[in-house]
Amino acid sequence: METNQGATKIYRVGIAGATGYTGYELIRLIHRHPQLTVAWLTSESSAGKAYSQIHPVSWAYPLISLAQALERADEVDVVFLCLPHAASIQPVRAFRQAGVRVIDLSADFRLKDPAVYQRWYGQPHTATELLEEAVYGLCEVNREAIRDAPLIANPGCYPTSVNLGLYPLAKAGWLGKRVIVDAKSGITGAGRKAKLLTSFAEANENLTPYNVGYRHRHVAEMEQVLNGAGPSTSRFIFSPHLLPVNRGILSTMVVDVPPGTPPQAVHQLYQESYRDEPFIHLLPLGECATLAHTVHSNRCTIGITPVDPSQPDNGELIVTASIDNLLKGASGQAVQNFNIAMGIDETLGLL
Amino acid sequence: METNQGATKIYRVGIAGATGYTGYELIRLIHRHPQLTVAWLTSESSAGKAYSQIHPVSWAYPLISLAQALERADEVDVVFLCLPHAASIQPVRAFRQAGVRVIDLSADFRLKDPAVYQRWYGQPHTATELLEEAVYGLCEVNREAIRDAPLIANPGCYPTSVNLGLYPLAKAGWLGKRVIVDAKSGITGAGRKAKLLTSFAEANENLTPYNVGYRHRHVAEMEQVLNGAGPSTSRFIFSPHLLPVNRGILSTMVVDVPPGTPPQAVHQLYQESYRDEPFIHLLPLGECATLAHTVHSNRCTIGITPVDPSQPDNGELIVTASIDNLLKGASGQAVQNFNIAMGIDETLGLL
Amino acid sequence: METNQGATKIYRVGIAGATGYTGYELIRLIHRHPQLTVAWLTSESSAGKAYSQIHPVSWAYPLISLAQALERADEVDVVFLCLPHAASIQPVRAFRQAGVRVIDLSADFRLKDPAVYQRWYGQPHTATELLEEAVYGLCEVNREAIRDAPLIANPGCYPTSVNLGLYPLAKAGWLGKRVIVDAKSGITGAGRKAKLLTSFAEANENLTPYNVGYRHRHVAEMEQVLNGAGPSTSRFIFSPHLLPVNRGILSTMVVDVPPGTPPQAVHQLYQESYRDEPFIHLLPLGECATLAHTVHSNRCTIGITPVDPSQPDNGELIVTASIDNLLKGASGQAVQNFNIAMGIDETLGLL
Amino acid sequence: METNQGATKIYRVGIAGATGYTGYELIRLIHRHPQLTVAWLTSESSAGKAYSQIHPVSWAYPLISLAQALERADEVDVVFLCLPHAASIQPVRAFRQAGVRVIDLSADFRLKDPAVYQRWYGQPHTATELLEEAVYGLCEVNREAIRDAPLIANPGCYPTSVNLGLYPLAKAGWLGKRVIVDAKSGITGAGRKAKLLTSFAEANENLTPYNVGYRHRHVAEMEQVLNGAGPSTSRFIFSPHLLPVNRGILSTMVVDVPPGTPPQAVHQLYQESYRDEPFIHLLPLGECATLAHTVHSNRCTIGITPVDPSQPDNGELIVTASIDNLLKGASGQAVQNFNIAMGIDETLGLL
Repeated sequence: METNQGATKIYRVGIAGATGYTGYELIRLIHRHPQLTVAWLTSESSAGKAYSQIHPVSWAYPLISLAQALERADEVDVVFLCLPHAASIQPVRAFRQAGVRVIDLSADFRLKDPAVYQRWYGQPHTATELLEEAVYGLCEVNREAIRDAPLIANPGCYPTSVNLGLYPLAKAGWLGKRVIVDAKSGITGAGRKAKLLTSFAEANENLTPYNVGYRHRHVAEMEQVLNGAGPSTSRFIFSPHLLPVNRGILSTMVVDVPPGTPPQAVHQLYQESYRDEPFIHLLPLGECATLAHTVHSNRCTIGITPVDPSQPDNGELIVTASIDNLLKGASGQAVQNFNIAMGIDETLGLL
Repeated sequence: METNQGATKIYRVGIAGATGYTGYELIRLIHRHPQLTVAWLTSESSAGKAYSQIHPVSWAYPLISLAQALERADEVDVVFLCLPHAASIQPVRAFRQAGVRVIDLSADFRLKDPAVYQRWYGQPHTATELLEEAVYGLCEVNREAIRDAPLIANPGCYPTSVNLGLYPLAKAGWLGKRVIVDAKSGITGAGRKAKLLTSFAEANENLTPYNVGYRHRHVAEMEQVLNGAGPSTSRFIFSPHLLPVNRGILSTMVVDVPPGTPPQAVHQLYQESYRDEPFIHLLPLGECATLAHTVHSNRCTIGITPVDPSQPDNGELIVTASIDNLLKGASGQAVQNFNIAMGIDETLGLL
Repeated sequence: METNQGATKIYRVGIAGATGYTGYELIRLIHRHPQLTVAWLTSESSAGKAYSQIHPVSWAYPLISLAQALERADEVDVVFLCLPHAASIQPVRAFRQAGVRVIDLSADFRLKDPAVYQRWYGQPHTATELLEEAVYGLCEVNREAIRDAPLIANPGCYPTSVNLGLYPLAKAGWLGKRVIVDAKSGITGAGRKAKLLTSFAEANENLTPYNVGYRHRHVAEMEQVLNGAGPSTSRFIFSPHLLPVNRGILSTMVVDVPPGTPPQAVHQLYQESYRDEPFIHLLPLGECATLAHTVHSNRCTIGITPVDPSQPDNGELIVTASIDNLLKGASGQAVQNFNIAMGIDETLGLL
Repeated sequence: METNQGATKIYRVGIAGATGYTGYELIRLIHRHPQLTVAWLTSESSAGKAYSQIHPVSWAYPLISLAQALERADEVDVVFLCLPHAASIQPVRAFRQAGVRVIDLSADFRLKDPAVYQRWYGQPHTATELLEEAVYGLCEVNREAIRDAPLIANPGCYPTSVNLGLYPLAKAGWLGKRVIVDAKSGITGAGRKAKLLTSFAEANENLTPYNVGYRHRHVAEMEQVLNGAGPSTSRFIFSPHLLPVNRGILSTMVVDVPPGTPPQAVHQLYQESYRDEPFIHLLPLGECATLAHTVHSNRCTIGITPVDPSQPDNGELIVTASIDNLLKGASGQAVQNFNIAMGIDETLGLL
């Protein structure tokens, strides 16, 4: 099934920022993908070393600098950028000018409106000319636009759980004016740099809320996707927590749908919205998603539960949505985006 | 300071259900308390064994049955009951008839209205004659009633965090119509019986919501305390989660106060409410409570944060409250209740 | 490369005892394997339910009883048995009589000498007629015998780490008279049944030695493999510990090689022994294996370190060996055995 | 019992390096100790801040620099130094010259022989004149020397578990020529500085051996204490591991006693050696120590198990010893040393 006119095409991949957790995970996925192969990997801090000196693996890949990678743009069919926000803008421009397809895992090309970018990221956007061609790579929502897209902005981890968890409601115009999102993320979500906050002895046996309310930059992606999906506009109160696990995000969301809506109708709406989606796992009505549903997979598991069993139709619902922050929340969705963009089987390398 | 007319009185303690986590913690507290000593310990499943055969300690206490304990009621000044709900009712009656002071850690005497008990616990209350003398032992709220109380119903763990976290607002009539509580509890909160849900390999690297919305019995204690505190009535949407840590509860609460209220005024209200409280730790405005603030202590740490830094006075707040579920949420508060009841220094054994 | 005369053969798999952790992991591997498909799954305790009711997955497989499975022996090409020891003997006989290839993950067919089986497992072996055709499936050691084997006894998890970690020394006759093995295993190694010892609140933040010295049944597999490999005979002092992680085994082994042997010579011996082995990862001399080297992979990572840097040739070495107990220590090696037995690419489904 | 001629004397404590984990734990112990009070706390990196800005506590202590503390030497009765090795030497000299009693938790005054210090710590000792008055504060072994000692070198964490676990054997001359110690330590043992190795996502679900064999500096303390205890000399092969728990050390030790020695005789030897020791918990013969036996206590729990149940008298034994690395392995033992030095109840503040 993987053949393509007699021979399977193999795509060559470059990864910039390959030693962080998302880069590490990307390489694992590439190894499993029948049509991807690693061409080069960059790391500014470890250029000159072998990958096996950075992570506990036997992979002998040499690490090069980003400058060297730009000179070797012709060796790759696609570049995945796993760089911090703001640091991604110039490399994206350079690789696009070299005609290379780019999947950017940073936040730099996710927000369509440069003013919104400036508001949340505290600096002007310096490549606004690329914002038009950039496609927000939330696969289940933007699949058509992703096909053949030259520049894909891979969504943030938290927004992926929230947006997939609420999109059917937003599209139907059923999402209430205020949405309360209480989200919990595994610690790889904070990146690989050593910090006291994410030290074992500080984070273990602990739970830490941070940037609660209306402070976290990821709120902007929720507003863009969900308020852009249908007629209504919601306010998101979003409270993330640092959870003492390696990976996984669980978002517990209290939402209001029009009073009188039976939860079965909501469940039916989700079933129809996500019918045939290979990576959406809708639970039976009344069950809640857990981290274990999705960790080490590219799935998003969604649960719908009426708040009050004695008045289930009163419009109060709890939606739980779980993803693996490194897979569906980052590298897995990036590969899924690649598969869609190239028109190959969307699940390749991801099952 | 511990002397009492020349000699310090030593109170003899019996614990029923001593091998669970709350019983274990109680014994540790008794060992640290200068005026408490263990008289007897019961365990139905381990009667006849020594305590050191059950837990990794060197304590040689023999374990007896509850029936034996009832015959030895005269050997104790106070009984702490660490039994499941419903199982506590008859022992409470028996020990009270024997004239022994009782601190009951079960749910059986927490709810003043037997109809509410029946609704949430699914069975009629069979000792309604004792409900009147029972005092709900939320120390910071009911201190006066606790003094000399013969029967104290020790509060539930979740409600302790929620009620202490919201009481000043409720009393002032500032608490809005709907309160969203997202709570996370360490696994000792589920008791010591071996269950698949709380097995290491199932709970570790996982996060599990359960009884979300308006389903958990502890909602009744929130309604009783907070809706009884002032003029207003709130609805509590309460979503507990099983967290992969041994101990600790964090409640993240989204509340509405009257629009126009500056968060500084709310903070000031809390400062005044909890001035001189030895076990309330109010954080500076804008900081959030974490589990690490309270684990292995009898403190409740409370944080108040405006939702939106660009419109802090809009009435939207996030209150975070953290306790150790085995201490302030169970055995620590039980000892605090004992200290108050006996008129001795409230902090004895708890610092 | 997976084609076989135009069409890839798909093998149908039955799993007995499919709801334990090894069964769960086997299904994941089958999903990734291009030539395997699930035919039926058994569970005595959950027969009649769907798999998704037991584990947090969307897999809809119905669970049947072992008795039903025996009637459907003709629907499978291979059976993997994930049953407790002793419970495996009769099903193995029945499936073999039905002509089905069997890979048994229990201990029942690992020991060639029924007297040794009786000594360590406390009961006589009741299918000694099958012991001769059973092949001990330590892939890197017995590869030739595994090809076409009708009955493969998949090795124990601890012995896989120890035997792979010491086999080159034993074969060369370099392994000293006494070998000290200190082993640490993740908690999935203890199975999925709820037990107090493996409850979260008991195992978390703890470390528990058990069956230390010369007590654990897995010693028999070390003696059989390593004392059978070369001219010398060693005594194994083996101390396992229950480690608060989900998966992984690390064995830290103090061994004596002939004094005067440079550690470089030992390292060279390992390099030659394991050249071309796809699942052996030999670290540079002086580095130690960690769990992170192998968790979620089918690798065995091995480190060789001289004890004393000031006298590295004195014959004292520390060998560290790490595997994932559910993969190389159970289901991964079982699939590797299947691949070898069928003559297909040994790494299929395992990279 | 705490009275001293009518009034209890209160000792004023200074802590240098108070924001690390041992300093933090010391403050908790001081709060529980009826005769200790905090006078000043130093932190080079956080001088000028309040303690509550560094740790999740409500303690308002100001942090001062070490230079300021030296000027305030007259405000304290005792100084606890929680500084890195080498950094302790000059402050010890200065506080001793000021006549202040010093309990040094670094390694700088533990080794009596400056040549041994230089060998293991890679630099000459620059205060050899103080080595004579320094007492190695292993309480159960050196109690008499500790009384009134002006300078106490608090033992290392690993050596405390090993030395207490083996001292009776060493003293009796029963300890064999080679002792294999496999030790596992919680991550607070690595200090509070943010490092990649001790980051949550690197250390969690992992186990990492380091400095295995004859490399770790703590070997020197084992040799000094155990080879100095009796007639025999042993070689220690010591392999520490970084364990994914916050606190606790477990040492699993394979030792040889003279063949023919019944394990009961060894157990009896330990009982006699440690009779009346308040912080030694000797398990029944055949049971093993676990971390849970000692975490959050000042105990050392010791287990003695014959290697081979079929030949228990063959002289092969496994000794397990567990301590809390921050309490008996650091701050708890430091307070115990203080109590002994002052002639007050040894258990004050530690039960």
